[in-house]
Amino acid sequence: MSMNKPKILLQLDTDAQPSVFDGVVAIDAGVEHLLRHGGITAANVRERVHGAIFTRGPAELRSTAIFVGGSDVAAGEAVLAEIRKTFFGPLRVSVLLDPNGANTTAAAAVWAAAKHVALADAQVLVLAATGPVGQRVARLLARQGAVVRAASRSASRAQAVCDAVARQVPGAKLSAHACASASETEASLQGAEVVIAAGAAGVELLSEHSRLAADGLKVAIDLNAVPPGGLAGVDVLDRAKDRQGVACYGAIGVGATKMKLHKSAIARLFETNDRILDAEEIFELGAAL
Amino acid sequence: MSMNKPKILLQLDTDAQPSVFDGVVAIDAGVEHLLRHGGITAANVRERVHGAIFTRGPAELRSTAIFVGGSDVAAGEAVLAEIRKTFFGPLRVSVLLDPNGANTTAAAAVWAAAKHVALADAQVLVLAATGPVGQRVARLLARQGAVVRAASRSASRAQAVCDAVARQVPGAKLSAHACASASETEASLQGAEVVIAAGAAGVELLSEHSRLAADGLKVAIDLNAVPPGGLAGVDVLDRAKDRQGVACYGAIGVGATKMKLHKSAIARLFETNDRILDAEEIFELGAAL
Amino acid sequence: MSMNKPKILLQLDTDAQPSVFDGVVAIDAGVEHLLRHGGITAANVRERVHGAIFTRGPAELRSTAIFVGGSDVAAGEAVLAEIRKTFFGPLRVSVLLDPNGANTTAAAAVWAAAKHVALADAQVLVLAATGPVGQRVARLLARQGAVVRAASRSASRAQAVCDAVARQVPGAKLSAHACASASETEASLQGAEVVIAAGAAGVELLSEHSRLAADGLKVAIDLNAVPPGGLAGVDVLDRAKDRQGVACYGAIGVGATKMKLHKSAIARLFETNDRILDAEEIFELGAAL
Repeated sequence: MSMNKPKILLQLDTDAQPSVFDGVVAIDAGVEHLLRHGGITAANVRERVHGAIFTRGPAELRSTAIFVGGSDVAAGEAVLAEIRKTFFGPLRVSVLLDPNGANTTAAAAVWAAAKHVALADAQVLVLAATGPVGQRVARLLARQGAVVRAASRSASRAQAVCDAVARQVPGAKLSAHACASASETEASLQGAEVVIAAGAAGVELLSEHSRLAADGLKVAIDLNAVPPGGLAGVDVLDRAKDRQGVACYGAIGVGATKMKLHKSAIARLFETNDRILDAEEIFELGAAL
Repeated sequence: MSMNKPKILLQLDTDAQPSVFDGVVAIDAGVEHLLRHGGITAANVRERVHGAIFTRGPAELRSTAIFVGGSDVAAGEAVLAEIRKTFFGPLRVSVLLDPNGANTTAAAAVWAAAKHVALADAQVLVLAATGPVGQRVARLLARQGAVVRAASRSASRAQAVCDAVARQVPGAKLSAHACASASETEASLQGAEVVIAAGAAGVELLSEHSRLAADGLKVAIDLNAVPPGGLAGVDVLDRAKDRQGVACYGAIGVGATKMKLHKSAIARLFETNDRILDAEEIFELGAAL
Repeated sequence: MSMNKPKILLQLDTDAQPSVFDGVVAIDAGVEHLLRHGGITAANVRERVHGAIFTRGPAELRSTAIFVGGSDVAAGEAVLAEIRKTFFGPLRVSVLLDPNGANTTAAAAVWAAAKHVALADAQVLVLAATGPVGQRVARLLARQGAVVRAASRSASRAQAVCDAVARQVPGAKLSAHACASASETEASLQGAEVVIAAGAAGVELLSEHSRLAADGLKVAIDLNAVPPGGLAGVDVLDRAKDRQGVACYGAIGVGATKMKLHKSAIARLFETNDRILDAEEIFELGAAL
């Protein structure tokens, strides 16, 4: 049985048009043939998966893989769940989940923090922890042993994130923080070594004044790429930029690591036919970068 | 004029999303560039064909080909008819028609039977002969000289298949059989050496009891891949499996030959620019496997 | 930084289905990976462009390029305008605009004329100058110093073309001609060395009688590929065909040069990351053919 089948990536995107970004990265990671599909839903993905698993022999299935993308993270998760159900026995291919870049972004942010701070027992504030990136950041931090302060404007939504992470990460150290005002945010930031902002485009989550007032802060990471930033005064291009003693990162500054994780994850898909790469597995790849 | 243009396959699919299955098989058959289109109809295919025939010189057109697929066999046939009308003179490319795998499946089934029985003058019962696969099985068998018993729940629909095959195959030996009950099916099976079930997913066409009662049966082929099978007691994985003296085949058991025929057909498209590969031409390729 | 990234062409088409013609030509011009998108509008193109410019390093962006096509030339122009706005600083890729083949067709027509006549100060009548191809022909001729007679059934629309070309080409020599009748067209043709018909499919713009009556005519080019032709008596296959002392060209006769310009333009996209190839830039490529 040939071991040298061309590498085929099935790009399944929940948006109407499949992402160009994800297509280019796949090619640069060594994919030889891209089969690109937009408009993918949990309801219509099954036949696409059958096409992936019924066309090559078991020993060749490592040369076929699936990427799940699109701007709606929840929709991507639902598609992945359906893909898992469609596999059976050895009839499966490896899958990378990275809708809206949420997994690679979260992993890159946590690696950026880890360059400056030992994460175990570190106090870390995650602003806008309720979004798809924020939740993943909280989860990855918790697994590294950090003490995670999950913040949201709403206390109950912050608590819901803590509950979800606690279910996924045994022994996670978590607290919920309502940050609806500058003073609440400042209070939540007290004693934190790291702050990571994972909010929606154009929403300022922390003023420069509040950031400068924080004692003991060592790292500030803003994952919002569209001005105004989530952390005022942190530039989108910052990459370990020293600002008043704090190592600052902007979305593009984190982007180089994000891109390496993305390419590394694509390459890993083709090593075996049974990998599912979600946030944790993508994060692990960073150890080798 | 270059003879070494990259091999381009235009994948025209009548479903909204072009088939992943057909895409992967095309790549594994040596296609270098796939241009994939879903939503193809007889009404919109013309411009796609113009793009195929007006872009390369006559001596290079052998490096461009068209695959017509999709789950609706009649829609695929209508698209092929329109493609033929769009060609003119030497401005044409080779075309493979295999909507829903109907042609490669029918050809593989008849080859499976031919491994065990000399088809000329063999009595063969085709259950659900009225569907796209069943009609093709009946036609291919008739061309090999078999005595074809075309069965359907409706006598008139069975007769319509016989009439259609008789028009296409001069000298075909055909009879129509109404098989609406177990006793009718048993009667139709009497004296048959081969039974091939080409029914819809999940419809049992022949009970195990009836099959075991059949005298002289040598081969039983069930093309239904979704349980319950069309021939009760035949497993989807059976491949010449001996069951009470009958060589049994399930849909996946026939699949290896089907896949070889599919790949072989794709490869043939690129030998000249004037082939139309429908059921008969695909069947012929089996002689070389 | 690698200089050897695979050549990726982003094919952005304003029609529902991306053009097969443009896809095949791109592959034959050396593109290694085609990312094809139909249904592109000025409103949805931005994210596609971000995917092109944010995925590779500045020195590698020359290996990514964009093709804008589709049957609606104005829609293609709007998409190009939006693409230009999306680029910033060095974050850009080269772009070829050729919706409906309008740019390559116009450039090929002017090159055909230039084979027989020194364009500087030559009198050239452009029939149906108001359409997308006609306007481009007028503009290219004006830049070569020809004296352009822009004709339309409507005097005001002909004048609008002259005004538009005058704004784009300083010093252009232009006159507007209303050609609503045979006698008006004959009068406009008087003294012209070249006539180029750029009308809609199936509309005769000049009778054979009128053409033969024209004194001093040296070249007649009909860009309409669908009979009846725009210039009666000129065959679609004519390629410098001598008819009563006039070098005649039909749409297919001009096609070989058009195809060479198209392929040459695609190849040029990958030399740097900052080219915008519109009519003039494509025309220039003809000097090297």
